[in-house]
Amino acid sequence: MVNRIITISREFRSGGRTIGRKVAEKLGIPCYDAELIQKIAEESGYTADYIKEESEYAPGGWLSTVFTDRTMGLTNQDKLWSIQCRVIEELAQKGPCVIVGRCADYILRGKADCLNVFIHASMEKRAERIVNEYGERKERPEQRLKDKDKRRTAYHRFYTDMKWGHAQNYHVCLDSGELGIGRCVELISQLY
Amino acid sequence: MVNRIITISREFRSGGRTIGRKVAEKLGIPCYDAELIQKIAEESGYTADYIKEESEYAPGGWLSTVFTDRTMGLTNQDKLWSIQCRVIEELAQKGPCVIVGRCADYILRGKADCLNVFIHASMEKRAERIVNEYGERKERPEQRLKDKDKRRTAYHRFYTDMKWGHAQNYHVCLDSGELGIGRCVELISQLY
Repeated sequence: MVNRIITISREFRSGGRTIGRKVAEKLGIPCYDAELIQKIAEESGYTADYIKEESEYAPGGWLSTVFTDRTMGLTNQDKLWSIQCRVIEELAQKGPCVIVGRCADYILRGKADCLNVFIHASMEKRAERIVNEYGERKERPEQRLKDKDKRRTAYHRFYTDMKWGHAQNYHVCLDSGELGIGRCVELISQLY
Repeated sequence: MVNRIITISREFRSGGRTIGRKVAEKLGIPCYDAELIQKIAEESGYTADYIKEESEYAPGGWLSTVFTDRTMGLTNQDKLWSIQCRVIEELAQKGPCVIVGRCADYILRGKADCLNVFIHASMEKRAERIVNEYGERKERPEQRLKDKDKRRTAYHRFYTDMKWGHAQNYHVCLDSGELGIGRCVELISQLY
């Protein structure tokens, strides 16, 4: 429980990843995001793309229990989850850092001194970010956001049994759309 | 939309009221909490105690629809709600202020320039506050907290159709138990 870790959970396209990187830069500590996926890839033997894709989908309900390889033991998702837990715990033991996504808040509960942050923004502001920051196509970004939200909620619930986006699960929740990325970075760094 | 208003929603015994008062003091603006109930009492003709009591209970389900005076029109609760809306809107028009509780975040949506804050703390920390700050009896404070939480959730849902404690409903959510009252006051004042 020596190292102080900032975990950032975030809604898709709320700017949580950017905030994480900027906070880490400001504090002079590493930020794990893509690096985390890379590490899980190395340890699991899967590609980074496969890992990203898999963690977008929660294992299904009873149907998947009956018809997938869960009946034969662990699914790929379960194996990835267990590697993800180990990698995150190792990183937290190495030193203070920022970890973006991947249920790090849950994985490190009681195992590290964490500041757990949740970043969100309205559908409208996130749709704007999709178009302006990422230059993605304008058609129906709202539908894409809704799909991503649903998947993250389901994944989170399956593995952590916590309610995604419920204020009580985090030390600080910030609306990046209303407060702006800069102010979020300022506040989180200050709280660290 | 000229005046800047801070609305504070809070879990019972999370220190939200104290935080509201201290923020207002720091910013040199009024804080409405007990004064709000007093104003609603004056306008409605009910006592402050009755108002406090009534707003602890959400109107019930179909049973209450059939057997209470809702069949005859508005219930006392509905009338109080409408007075509450008017009083809060009037206060917001008067000048910048802090408003604690009473669904002010919802009532002022689109009607004032609000910073909506939610204060929460773990059951353990709130139970500590019940005993240490308020000198209340030690027996089962958790049960009392759970009851209060349930009532506030139900009241909030009935009148606002918003999910109580859902991060997405607020600009900032803070865990006062982990961050401490002082740091919450600091952060909110800074964001104002």
